[in-house]
Amino acid sequence: MTTLGHKIWAIPEGYLPPEEQSEHGTGALVSHEAACVLNAGDADAHLEITLYFADREPVGPYGVVVPARRTRHVRFNDFTDPEPVPRATDYASVIVSDVPVVVQHTRLDSRDPSVALLSTIAFPGSTSYLDRGL
Amino acid sequence: MTTLGHKIWAIPEGYLPPEEQSEHGTGALVSHEAACVLNAGDADAHLEITLYFADREPVGPYGVVVPARRTRHVRFNDFTDPEPVPRATDYASVIVSDVPVVVQHTRLDSRDPSVALLSTIAFPGSTSYLDRGL
Amino acid sequence: MTTLGHKIWAIPEGYLPPEEQSEHGTGALVSHEAACVLNAGDADAHLEITLYFADREPVGPYGVVVPARRTRHVRFNDFTDPEPVPRATDYASVIVSDVPVVVQHTRLDSRDPSVALLSTIAFPGSTSYLDRGL
Amino acid sequence: MTTLGHKIWAIPEGYLPPEEQSEHGTGALVSHEAACVLNAGDADAHLEITLYFADREPVGPYGVVVPARRTRHVRFNDFTDPEPVPRATDYASVIVSDVPVVVQHTRLDSRDPSVALLSTIAFPGSTSYLDRGL
Repeated sequence: MTTLGHKIWAIPEGYLPPEEQSEHGTGALVSHEAACVLNAGDADAHLEITLYFADREPVGPYGVVVPARRTRHVRFNDFTDPEPVPRATDYASVIVSDVPVVVQHTRLDSRDPSVALLSTIAFPGSTSYLDRGL
Repeated sequence: MTTLGHKIWAIPEGYLPPEEQSEHGTGALVSHEAACVLNAGDADAHLEITLYFADREPVGPYGVVVPARRTRHVRFNDFTDPEPVPRATDYASVIVSDVPVVVQHTRLDSRDPSVALLSTIAFPGSTSYLDRGL
Repeated sequence: MTTLGHKIWAIPEGYLPPEEQSEHGTGALVSHEAACVLNAGDADAHLEITLYFADREPVGPYGVVVPARRTRHVRFNDFTDPEPVPRATDYASVIVSDVPVVVQHTRLDSRDPSVALLSTIAFPGSTSYLDRGL
Repeated sequence: MTTLGHKIWAIPEGYLPPEEQSEHGTGALVSHEAACVLNAGDADAHLEITLYFADREPVGPYGVVVPARRTRHVRFNDFTDPEPVPRATDYASVIVSDVPVVVQHTRLDSRDPSVALLSTIAFPGSTSYLDRGL
């Protein structure tokens, strides 16, 4: 069996600048935040992403499919269902997949107007979390 | 039981620029350093944060509560009790929680005047550290 | 035996800006993306790097040798065989080595024209992945 | 017993810009690269740092002491014995400590002239590496 990664990932840091603030118009240099997901396995990965906030109950799940042997750089900016991600608001995310994947968190911030980048491999959770019934 | 994360986290890198140096005034683009904490569990997390320095004994604990199913992006800039975090001083931090959480370290540096970002999932310690009696 | 690291590493985030966009001409400040590989052991490391994309089958392997007791900062920009890495395209990578190594992912983005940096230790996979027959 | 961290750490990415290039003169904003070390334990940590290069044998060890309950942000720029770290040269580092510590890698690059930052928790090695006899 092919297994590379984990089924649970957490990203405590999340923040989308107010509006699409950017000195760089639209496109690749617009401020954005992404969960880069690698599914190196031979089965499609069905992800459920839940967002956590400072002052209200979690929102989700947001459904994302990453096909077998593919990567998908999921932009939180693009989320619409069940609701868009609020701007200028601290949030965090938990990603649950039905097959192992690898997740890296990246933000490109172009408010300045110069570009700033951050990135880190997300935190891989143990499968005991799945016993929760998610 | 819901468990996602660890009870012990370490962030060796810590540094607040002198004063609130910033070309961006106050608000979201002020230089700041944060421990982004995700509590995905069903019990409130009571955190005790201890700061380590180069040339004196540790300071703390700073008490922080992250409610169940919430995230809190804790800014070291805002610490006051037992004392504010000194500026222009290397420090490090250890976070002890009574329930598992996930911690990500982020700094936004806007001294330049352009903005720079760094971020990494913090280091998760083993629970054997808790035997210390903290 | 000397062992430091893992034989499998994953980097979900990959992106090369269109063309060699740079306000800094050629050389150290050209936009680039690297897998920095440390082989602290006493045997040469033979790496096979596979690239994953959003909408087509993986490409590779790209062969790289990191001699014993050496580091090599492998730039994805320089890949040519079996084919160059496409520009302005999301990708991910999996690195398989025949001896343990340590991998750190770094990108220098100088499109802005200011320079932005990101870096993270890559994700170390378990050796069970090797059973796949790669 | 107090134990937080590991005795072996690796940082595959290392690079000091040519000379002390900086638009920010000397001081906190000079380009620099650091291994931020936290010793949260009750015994002094004696570190031996070895540098690895692309085309010659490793150099070291560089000796560093991090006292009990202290942090030290070790700048590679400051190394002199057995020799300074060469500029504009890819390198990597392995840190061996006699007691557990936590290590985070940070670079501030101010060549641009704008400031860029990167940071990641270093890679913690298993103690089997110590059997090598270092």
